[in-house]
Amino acid sequence: MEKITVRAPATVANVVCGFDCLGFAIKEPFDEITISIIEEQTVKIKHLDNFNLPTEADQNVAGKAVLAMIEKIQSSDHKKPLSPPKNLEHIGFQIEIKKGIKPGSGIGSSAASAVGAVVAANELLGNHFRTNELLEFALAGEELASQGRHADNIAPCLLGGFTLVRSVDPLDIVKLEFPPLFVTVIHPQIEIKTSEARKILPQQIPLKTAVKAWSNLGAFVSALSKGDYELLARSMEDEIIEPVRKGLIPYFDELKKAGLKAGALGGGISGSGPSVFMLSKSQEIAQNVAQEMSGILDKNRIPFKAYVSEIDSEGTKVIPRRKA
Amino acid sequence: MEKITVRAPATVANVVCGFDCLGFAIKEPFDEITISIIEEQTVKIKHLDNFNLPTEADQNVAGKAVLAMIEKIQSSDHKKPLSPPKNLEHIGFQIEIKKGIKPGSGIGSSAASAVGAVVAANELLGNHFRTNELLEFALAGEELASQGRHADNIAPCLLGGFTLVRSVDPLDIVKLEFPPLFVTVIHPQIEIKTSEARKILPQQIPLKTAVKAWSNLGAFVSALSKGDYELLARSMEDEIIEPVRKGLIPYFDELKKAGLKAGALGGGISGSGPSVFMLSKSQEIAQNVAQEMSGILDKNRIPFKAYVSEIDSEGTKVIPRRKA
Repeated sequence: MEKITVRAPATVANVVCGFDCLGFAIKEPFDEITISIIEEQTVKIKHLDNFNLPTEADQNVAGKAVLAMIEKIQSSDHKKPLSPPKNLEHIGFQIEIKKGIKPGSGIGSSAASAVGAVVAANELLGNHFRTNELLEFALAGEELASQGRHADNIAPCLLGGFTLVRSVDPLDIVKLEFPPLFVTVIHPQIEIKTSEARKILPQQIPLKTAVKAWSNLGAFVSALSKGDYELLARSMEDEIIEPVRKGLIPYFDELKKAGLKAGALGGGISGSGPSVFMLSKSQEIAQNVAQEMSGILDKNRIPFKAYVSEIDSEGTKVIPRRKA
Repeated sequence: MEKITVRAPATVANVVCGFDCLGFAIKEPFDEITISIIEEQTVKIKHLDNFNLPTEADQNVAGKAVLAMIEKIQSSDHKKPLSPPKNLEHIGFQIEIKKGIKPGSGIGSSAASAVGAVVAANELLGNHFRTNELLEFALAGEELASQGRHADNIAPCLLGGFTLVRSVDPLDIVKLEFPPLFVTVIHPQIEIKTSEARKILPQQIPLKTAVKAWSNLGAFVSALSKGDYELLARSMEDEIIEPVRKGLIPYFDELKKAGLKAGALGGGISGSGPSVFMLSKSQEIAQNVAQEMSGILDKNRIPFKAYVSEIDSEGTKVIPRRKA
């Protein structure tokens, strides 16, 4: 029986001045997705964790993403034959999901499941599809969770590093150059629904504020490419999203202040929260940042998880099988 | 008598997706500003062109910029002595302005006068001031013309190349990396007042539209740094400013369409118009673009000037004196 296991990394989206477009992958935590071909025309989901996620394929982000892929292969406008040939009317997929990324944490849990599943399935199909096609299938899965077409977790999860979604329709993803960066993620164990976090956003913003935002994003992208840490720090400003969403996260201001004091370049809300991330120049600083931020939540008796990790530059990758 | 002549290039600001922050310098046209020290405590303006610009120093952008510099030297908080020592209570400046950039053309005419004057004066004062200080003095001059604190022409005029104004207060200018690019500027001979062009802008914009705008700017900055011409072309989109301002420019849609058809990567309104610019990969394409765009205005009997020029990477520079 053919079987492929991939590792799909957590991702930070809505990176401060890059709301709805800028994201990056981190080395930890990650999901492990194993897909095998089965002799039954179906997509089965099996969970190797305790998150009680749906097991119906069309209700599960990984399942939905793989279903989108199968649909494409079977559609009349898809002329490219599978190599080696496979008749998907006689076979199906079993998806085993071992989530290392807690659902609802704000670090791309659903994106990891969706991307992991399509990358594994594609590997089983002899790398039949190109990157942009894989992104489209993963988007179909991600839509289940986020109720919208958002590629800012999907893209870095698949490609690694920093990515910018220039456009979702048509999909246009830009891989950004970046210098060594270390990430601290603090995940307070509370729940924020993405849909709720979207509801409180302003529909309209002042043009002046928008100009500030895009000036910062332009500077941030330039700082990444030049490895200019000081500019990176100065450009991590957000007057639009953070002020309205930070109220959903306990002790946000204190957490950020503590992170900056410990030497972080900057940071903010990861995705739509509740995770908070900070970027630092070194592993050592990122560790100190984690310690200082943890202190705030410890003191206030908020349970949390903390991760310190390098930016992941590989994205979702196949794990070589151990020899029996 | 000490005398310095500088050449200050024209600049394109509001570069499509970079409203109010992104600008670049072009090799032609340019202003020539000559400053000499005179034995009279005053700033005199002399025009070597026919534009009838003000000759009172405090009503002239070049004069105002130099006055800001003098004020700084004489202020009690400025402790750095001039070297060689000069007593500004006994000397003054005569500024001779030979404008090659027509006022009101939308390609940074006032910025060139202001920057040219401060660079020349600073050279006479033994390069007393640093870049950011020069930008501040030039801003004081530019404010006379644009009724606001806008550095997106000032910065590329002084520094050359592409610049991004991350912040005007405090002033934070980012020099961007860029690949070879050629510029076509078509200047229809009509007048648009910057203040009028500002009045018609929306005060508020939808968050969704803003997200598109900053995604494009982020992609544009990345495309510049990677020399990715195709991405550069795709990211030159503006749904915010161009739709409301293009009505001020005769045959704007036709001009743009003709430019793109002739091979330009993209383009739009230069500054607040009426000039229209297009970026191209080669001098040859930029020439064709100029020809096709000129055809539109010729046909419709609109008088215009056309410029084809490389991006200027030097900014405002001192012209070596010819030997007698």
